[in-house]
Amino acid sequence: MVRVPGVFDAERVAVVGATERDGSVGAAVMENLVEDFDGEVRPVNPSADRVFGYPCADDVAETDADLAVIVVPPEVALEVVESAGRAGIENLVVITAGFGEAGGEGAEREQELRELAETYELNLVGPNCLGVISTPSGLNATFGPRNALSGRMSFMSQSGALVTAILEWAGDRGHGFKDVVSLGNKAVLDETDFVETWGEDPETDVVLGYLEGIGDGTGFVETARDVTQETPVVVLKSGRTEAGAQAASSHTGAIAGSEAAYEAGLEKAGVIRADSTEELFDFGAMLAGGRLPGTDDVAVVTNAGGPGVIATDAIGDSDLNLATFEDGTRRTLKKALPPTANVYNPVDVIGDAPAERFGDALEAVLSDPGVGATVVIACPSAVLSFDRLAETLVEARQREDVPIAVCLMGGSSVKGPSETLSAVETPTYFDPTRAVRSLDALKRYGEIRERSYEPPASFDVDRAAAQSVLERIKTQDDNRLGIEAMELLDAYGIETPEGGIVDSPAEATALAERIGGDVVMKIVSPDILHKTDIGGVEVGVPAEAVEETYEALVARARNYQPDARLLGVQVQELIDLDHGVETIVGVNRDPQFGPLVLFGLGGVFVEVLKDTTVRIAPVSEAEAAGMLDDIDSTPLLRGARGQEPIDEEGIVETIQRLSQLVTDFPAIVELDINPLVATADGVVAVDIRLTVDPETL
Amino acid sequence: MVRVPGVFDAERVAVVGATERDGSVGAAVMENLVEDFDGEVRPVNPSADRVFGYPCADDVAETDADLAVIVVPPEVALEVVESAGRAGIENLVVITAGFGEAGGEGAEREQELRELAETYELNLVGPNCLGVISTPSGLNATFGPRNALSGRMSFMSQSGALVTAILEWAGDRGHGFKDVVSLGNKAVLDETDFVETWGEDPETDVVLGYLEGIGDGTGFVETARDVTQETPVVVLKSGRTEAGAQAASSHTGAIAGSEAAYEAGLEKAGVIRADSTEELFDFGAMLAGGRLPGTDDVAVVTNAGGPGVIATDAIGDSDLNLATFEDGTRRTLKKALPPTANVYNPVDVIGDAPAERFGDALEAVLSDPGVGATVVIACPSAVLSFDRLAETLVEARQREDVPIAVCLMGGSSVKGPSETLSAVETPTYFDPTRAVRSLDALKRYGEIRERSYEPPASFDVDRAAAQSVLERIKTQDDNRLGIEAMELLDAYGIETPEGGIVDSPAEATALAERIGGDVVMKIVSPDILHKTDIGGVEVGVPAEAVEETYEALVARARNYQPDARLLGVQVQELIDLDHGVETIVGVNRDPQFGPLVLFGLGGVFVEVLKDTTVRIAPVSEAEAAGMLDDIDSTPLLRGARGQEPIDEEGIVETIQRLSQLVTDFPAIVELDINPLVATADGVVAVDIRLTVDPETL
Repeated sequence: MVRVPGVFDAERVAVVGATERDGSVGAAVMENLVEDFDGEVRPVNPSADRVFGYPCADDVAETDADLAVIVVPPEVALEVVESAGRAGIENLVVITAGFGEAGGEGAEREQELRELAETYELNLVGPNCLGVISTPSGLNATFGPRNALSGRMSFMSQSGALVTAILEWAGDRGHGFKDVVSLGNKAVLDETDFVETWGEDPETDVVLGYLEGIGDGTGFVETARDVTQETPVVVLKSGRTEAGAQAASSHTGAIAGSEAAYEAGLEKAGVIRADSTEELFDFGAMLAGGRLPGTDDVAVVTNAGGPGVIATDAIGDSDLNLATFEDGTRRTLKKALPPTANVYNPVDVIGDAPAERFGDALEAVLSDPGVGATVVIACPSAVLSFDRLAETLVEARQREDVPIAVCLMGGSSVKGPSETLSAVETPTYFDPTRAVRSLDALKRYGEIRERSYEPPASFDVDRAAAQSVLERIKTQDDNRLGIEAMELLDAYGIETPEGGIVDSPAEATALAERIGGDVVMKIVSPDILHKTDIGGVEVGVPAEAVEETYEALVARARNYQPDARLLGVQVQELIDLDHGVETIVGVNRDPQFGPLVLFGLGGVFVEVLKDTTVRIAPVSEAEAAGMLDDIDSTPLLRGARGQEPIDEEGIVETIQRLSQLVTDFPAIVELDINPLVATADGVVAVDIRLTVDPETL
Repeated sequence: MVRVPGVFDAERVAVVGATERDGSVGAAVMENLVEDFDGEVRPVNPSADRVFGYPCADDVAETDADLAVIVVPPEVALEVVESAGRAGIENLVVITAGFGEAGGEGAEREQELRELAETYELNLVGPNCLGVISTPSGLNATFGPRNALSGRMSFMSQSGALVTAILEWAGDRGHGFKDVVSLGNKAVLDETDFVETWGEDPETDVVLGYLEGIGDGTGFVETARDVTQETPVVVLKSGRTEAGAQAASSHTGAIAGSEAAYEAGLEKAGVIRADSTEELFDFGAMLAGGRLPGTDDVAVVTNAGGPGVIATDAIGDSDLNLATFEDGTRRTLKKALPPTANVYNPVDVIGDAPAERFGDALEAVLSDPGVGATVVIACPSAVLSFDRLAETLVEARQREDVPIAVCLMGGSSVKGPSETLSAVETPTYFDPTRAVRSLDALKRYGEIRERSYEPPASFDVDRAAAQSVLERIKTQDDNRLGIEAMELLDAYGIETPEGGIVDSPAEATALAERIGGDVVMKIVSPDILHKTDIGGVEVGVPAEAVEETYEALVARARNYQPDARLLGVQVQELIDLDHGVETIVGVNRDPQFGPLVLFGLGGVFVEVLKDTTVRIAPVSEAEAAGMLDDIDSTPLLRGARGQEPIDEEGIVETIQRLSQLVTDFPAIVELDINPLVATADGVVAVDIRLTVDPETL
């Protein structure tokens, strides 16, 4: 159940701690509310009769409000919350600081706040926040210096100061908002709640967020992937780098999750990431237009060659292409433009073009069915009126559905025209590179919207057998398992080399003969981690040497560590590594997002080039296949350098089976199949290591 | 001899084609000149007596001008240029279009223009340009709508429209210029001339350029690497991408060079590249401050945690580090700041900080000897005056030499304070990410400034022997050489495997015995390109099989191509590839920048991962060593995965020797040593292919 809308749809707002004292938060909130709010404002202050002319209540319970904004000191805030809850006021914004962010007593206070919210089923924003804004009703329940312009973006921010900064800056640029919320400590309502709310809000066309952490990654992914099928979500997630994560953790007190997990989680959620504050709003303004490119091919219409080339470079850097026009389009352009104009893309309407000529060229390229989006670039000239150009572009937008990004490359003269275009959700930029990057975000959103989220496959596995392999952990001191756990993979249908563990030379020989050909022999002991280093592995042992090798392996192990528990010797089919590609499939668990599945090519590709990719489990077939496309060394799987292409489906299936295994068994903390050898004929898991948490088994 | 300054230092400016006709270029130039110029303005127009009140001359020769600006139609422009030249007017700005950019007749006209310039030794800007600006004298000889603010950046642009756009935009942001030039067709004066001029200009602190191509890459590199030792040069080079290069070539008519060559050339020149228009001026404004970070460690002082984290992420992404303060700094901060402030980096002075508290924190971190640069971030708040903060920062700047980047995260309220800071060359940004990227450019310039350009080594080589190997090309139809040219490498001291070319089985055996051990045998024929495909290569031939193998190789070659010229069979020492790393060293020639030397690891690293790096020859020792640092797979040369580190010096020397070879012989069009096998003990060139141009031999 989403209960948040009440916060933004309030009709009667109580301000608990309202005052006229200059410079106080209580006065600032009152002033902001009184300024624009269509609903009723009800100050609460037992020691005042009226505040800014409004009659004061002594207690929030007397106000009949449907939203209470709390600015009283932290010591009394809990009482107010309880009183509001008892009086049936469901929506609260706790601006007051001195909770979790202050540590110690504050953290206890925040826990009490959370409990009160649960008891009374409160939609509680904050504490320690700037407040909330909803422009349709003129609700500005913040203590910030500026209200938002109205628009179709909704914005949440884990930094209140960033909200004040953004409101000033966006206001001067004509960026408008539907709702704005400063998340504060997120004691109750968090990013997931607001994504869900705005996903259902017909007045929100794009959700923007500044986040330093996501508490419940799994819940966020689930909610956001639903929402992003209809409404784009763009997030600036800070703490990406090691230094940034440390700074974020000292700022919010939250433990930073791994960047790899956030990357995989936000990708799975269909969330577009912005790398900077400006990019967040560049993308947001473009996405608020509500239009998506029909193709990836972009037309550029410019009155200046240089900026046209700059835009073309940006297109080259993006996932978009420079459109090639149809003959008819070029003919139309030729007719409409002077002879020195360039009718190929980028279209140069020449420096002496008035707005009308831009209009003619635009009409031609917008009618070309191959053109998915357009960048219009205008440099100042004696004959070009930016105002007139803006009107022309508004008309073009009304005629055609193709997204248009506009570069008005001037100074203060572009302010009015920019606002004209903003009013019809057409973003303007100075820099052509930023305009193109924003179109690229549009394209990415188009892809997200077309995703079909198939459920992960459910393979027929032997769960009981897997359970019994994992149970072995209970009989040992160590919580790690190695090759002795290969049956775990067998149980989940992941192919392993033929072989087994034996405990006598005779058995070893018998097994080797059954396998046929040369074999690999390894000592099996949970106490010996680096088997190769002590001579505990022999590769390519012929049948006649198996007995002797068995004795040698055992002798070396005893010699190396007399008290090591020896579980026997593994005798395994020899996998021909020369005709296969070594890959790695692994899993570890992230505190926010759960199990992360990693894939990469083995050896130098993982160790030196760090060429790996990660997904959140459970992994669907499409996601697993996407992992193979992600890495740089993929051509080596696909027949580079004259090799036979390997069995990609085998890898894709192995990833999914492993994903099912770690989803079924939360006790598996870490697991690596290294190498998973892939050949043209199939894949085989040659070695395994895993860590098991006996507590959760 | 740099003759350009005359263009900017003119005292008497003739405007040939001056008129009062509304909307004409002649009127616009006159109006701009008259507006601010400290010198004299002399209109030339035989059909007018006065233009804007200034007495008209009939001919430019009568004006006694030291700069003539020409706006007459192209048909008469050449006469004017000749007249000016004859009259001793050395400096000309030809605004008139209809030259090279128009093709055909225009191109001929441009050639004549160039010849006139040579005859009369003219400093000629253009043709087909917007004009020039020099702010100290108020000279605005452009037909653009806006003059530049005065400042310490000088800007050249290959796009006139971009100049008008930038002047509007920069003017509104308080960015000022010393000189501005629209390069036009660069018939005479080009980017190299202006870089040289501004390098010697004490009033220019940073050179900015928008370029679509560099005609004489070699000359540019030579000039720019001198200039950048004292004056930073930042260039936005468009046409970086394939699409962009095509667009640039259709815009300017110039053939676009390869991006790899530009990248290597600009790097060698010490030029910093910007990726977008905004970045060009972000970097420029920061570099105009004239200060460099003493260390790579950055302090962040903010009144808002969130933007502090965003800045820290940007630092993490850059080549800078987040500074760790000395104990004393933290103690000072603790004393100066309220108890809830964060005295670790990023320093959070807390949302209620007035400008003074920013000042105190800044004083503390600027005194920390570990701090090389500072980012100050201010979000709007009730108690913070941006004006007062700007004054505080101006004072701090006067006290301390540490570069400061300032983020004023507001809207129009930051305009005044930004101008205050611009006036002391302290740039302001909205977005913390852009501020940090600009500091990163400062760091890069610091490194460029500290470069010591050692001359390339000159090895003692046998040039005559090399010449005679290359001469062989004259006796064959094909201009390619293969393994038969290994002596070329011997002549330049690049180690090759022991061996030679023989033409009988007996000689082959004798040679194999001299070499000792198994050998490699290859058919030698200029007519057989893919020797391996026809069985023309045998690896690991034991001495007893050499005769038989000789016959087999020859038989296969005859069988494959009966008319192929067989030069014999190469018998070569077998190099153990398993204990070495295969690398590639290659050369090709760029029309602008000359020979490009390429280095990378062989096989999959070059073919699949494209992990290569390129330098312009001649390559110094430091540059060659830098190539090894550049590639991602370098750890494989340095003992990754338990291998013995290979002989890096051997590779570095080989690169230099090859560089010397291709510098000595311009006839070598392309050359690949593939593989150059590197082991711990040295390097050896196993195979070679080259293309030779007999015309330049």
